[in-house]
Amino acid sequence: MPTTRPENRTGDRLLFTPGPLTTSPTVREAMRVDIGSWDRDCIDLVADIRSRLLQLAGGRDDLTCIPIPGSGTTGVEAMLGTAVPRDGKLLVLINGAYGRRMALMADRMGMAHRCHVDPENQPHDPAELARLLEEDRSISHVAVVHCETTSGLLNPLREIGLAVARSGRRFLVDAISSFGAYAVGAGQPIDFDAGPIDYLVVSANKAIEGVPGCAFVLARIEAIRRCEGNSRSFSLDLYDQWQHMHESGLFRYTPPTHVLLAFRQALVEMQEEGGIESRAARYRENHRLLNEGMRRLGFREYIRPEHQSHVITAYHHPHKDFDFRRFYDRLHAKGYIIYPGKVTEVDTFRIANIGHVGPDEVRGLLAAIEEVVAEGI
Amino acid sequence: MPTTRPENRTGDRLLFTPGPLTTSPTVREAMRVDIGSWDRDCIDLVADIRSRLLQLAGGRDDLTCIPIPGSGTTGVEAMLGTAVPRDGKLLVLINGAYGRRMALMADRMGMAHRCHVDPENQPHDPAELARLLEEDRSISHVAVVHCETTSGLLNPLREIGLAVARSGRRFLVDAISSFGAYAVGAGQPIDFDAGPIDYLVVSANKAIEGVPGCAFVLARIEAIRRCEGNSRSFSLDLYDQWQHMHESGLFRYTPPTHVLLAFRQALVEMQEEGGIESRAARYRENHRLLNEGMRRLGFREYIRPEHQSHVITAYHHPHKDFDFRRFYDRLHAKGYIIYPGKVTEVDTFRIANIGHVGPDEVRGLLAAIEEVVAEGI
Repeated sequence: MPTTRPENRTGDRLLFTPGPLTTSPTVREAMRVDIGSWDRDCIDLVADIRSRLLQLAGGRDDLTCIPIPGSGTTGVEAMLGTAVPRDGKLLVLINGAYGRRMALMADRMGMAHRCHVDPENQPHDPAELARLLEEDRSISHVAVVHCETTSGLLNPLREIGLAVARSGRRFLVDAISSFGAYAVGAGQPIDFDAGPIDYLVVSANKAIEGVPGCAFVLARIEAIRRCEGNSRSFSLDLYDQWQHMHESGLFRYTPPTHVLLAFRQALVEMQEEGGIESRAARYRENHRLLNEGMRRLGFREYIRPEHQSHVITAYHHPHKDFDFRRFYDRLHAKGYIIYPGKVTEVDTFRIANIGHVGPDEVRGLLAAIEEVVAEGI
Repeated sequence: MPTTRPENRTGDRLLFTPGPLTTSPTVREAMRVDIGSWDRDCIDLVADIRSRLLQLAGGRDDLTCIPIPGSGTTGVEAMLGTAVPRDGKLLVLINGAYGRRMALMADRMGMAHRCHVDPENQPHDPAELARLLEEDRSISHVAVVHCETTSGLLNPLREIGLAVARSGRRFLVDAISSFGAYAVGAGQPIDFDAGPIDYLVVSANKAIEGVPGCAFVLARIEAIRRCEGNSRSFSLDLYDQWQHMHESGLFRYTPPTHVLLAFRQALVEMQEEGGIESRAARYRENHRLLNEGMRRLGFREYIRPEHQSHVITAYHHPHKDFDFRRFYDRLHAKGYIIYPGKVTEVDTFRIANIGHVGPDEVRGLLAAIEEVVAEGI
């Protein structure tokens, strides 16, 4: 049975990528409306989105949600630049490209910072972090990436947070790839209380399955309240954005209205699916199917199973002459889009299993890969 | 004849606002596709958009086009932070909220700057600027807003540029509201040679009639080439973004793919309409009809005709008890969205006449306003 999807012209392809990802037709349909940025329609839309995101975070009244136009990266830079005061010092935990990027941001902003680097296939060790925080008393804030899209590695967020909290520092989290895909709550992977998370960045186009163009920072009100004037940027100032939104319900400058309409629809569909638990279960099953299939086809994952997220998986090139470009193009022709590698030390490629895809789509992808493998790679 | 539009539920309203604005159904339709951010589809899309924007700027090979996710404001901050070196000093010309915002940006970035403030209803005087630049030799860059959306005032960009050029300084332009609505070329309102414009910021959701979520900076290659390491931000670094795009055709971080798809369609439709000249003619006619109608109904514009843009018009409140909120809501119920005032010293409201609207839509709006006026305002 040929696996080429019936209409594999542009746009009918399935994205097995970490965002932008495959969205539902109804999410995209939601963008067929123009609304005014100053209008009640927009104020209500933004309020609804913020409230739904806070619900996903456990319905806590000690958190607020601050949208910031742009990508997840924009949200992360806004978080760092707003949270860390001029006399603060940031410790960046790095085991992938997104950790490294936070250090680049601190550098550009002229922010005092220190990096702690672990290998790309190894999660951060909370005990080592505790020693480091004991040793360098000048560190005021710790930033970490929960799920490193570089490799698919999941860092032990809860335990890292506990080490940060025990040392009395503030905790900043890039949860762009994980929020919506992992449970939130007491004892769960994302636990706002265990190691009190001050800020956590979420993106529109990851596990909530919206389209790219807006980031959202979940911030502890008690923390953001103390951040007036910290920001090294006007447009990335979360404090100002929060104040303005608190007073008027409006963005300080033009919001990406269509992206927000899609995101609201994505949040509604997430609720209909049964919330984070159901979504996480779907992704876990997608990942299990994918990985079993890939192993059967002779591929080996880069990250050890106990540290592997159910969001994205990096696979080793099967042999040294493997031509990823050709492999990619053959899958592309069959209607499937995968993702190149980003790990620095070994050759990998990546397959994400988040987005509006389920077992049938994963099986379709595996069948297509099997065909390409049979043709020789 | 009742003027209420047939289906005035959310989204069927016409936006007479300065962006987000009314887009064509086909522009919105273009967003019904998911594309991969690393895929050839995205590389081709971005290349096509950049090339079409450069064509609109006169097809010059001394310019490049650098997209930056976010709103126009994001683009302006990226321009300032990348263009002005650490030892530079920026002069910000201010006669409205968007000029003031540039000064706030410079302040947040810790950039040496000076402000020159004119009244909100008065264009900047090139002779006065020349004297100021003569007097303060420490100024390296001058930034100006071409069309101040605050009031609808159009600044004499060409003449200001000539004064900047004669004094040997560099020229940075916020053309967010004007690009696409005013002719570009020798002797035209936007003249890259007259007062050599180094950088000019364009937004997706203004006169090119796309949806909000991305800005584009048209930069002189000779200027951007010298800006490595200037940026005070990672995500707003135009030099890095340009380098990366030059080498790979890709964004450095997740692009707003659906917004870009809509923008490409908007650029295609702009070409089909006959380019900037035809669009400018439509907007001029929209503005003429609007303003004649508003005067007939007893409204008076804030800006004198010789300085008034054909993009957006600020109208005085007709009397001191005028209830803008009620006026707005009545028009909203009839399917029309207008814009609140932003001028600081007098009470105004604003009506933009850009977007996918023509004489029929302007007449529809005027008829609706006439009805509301007849009911008492």
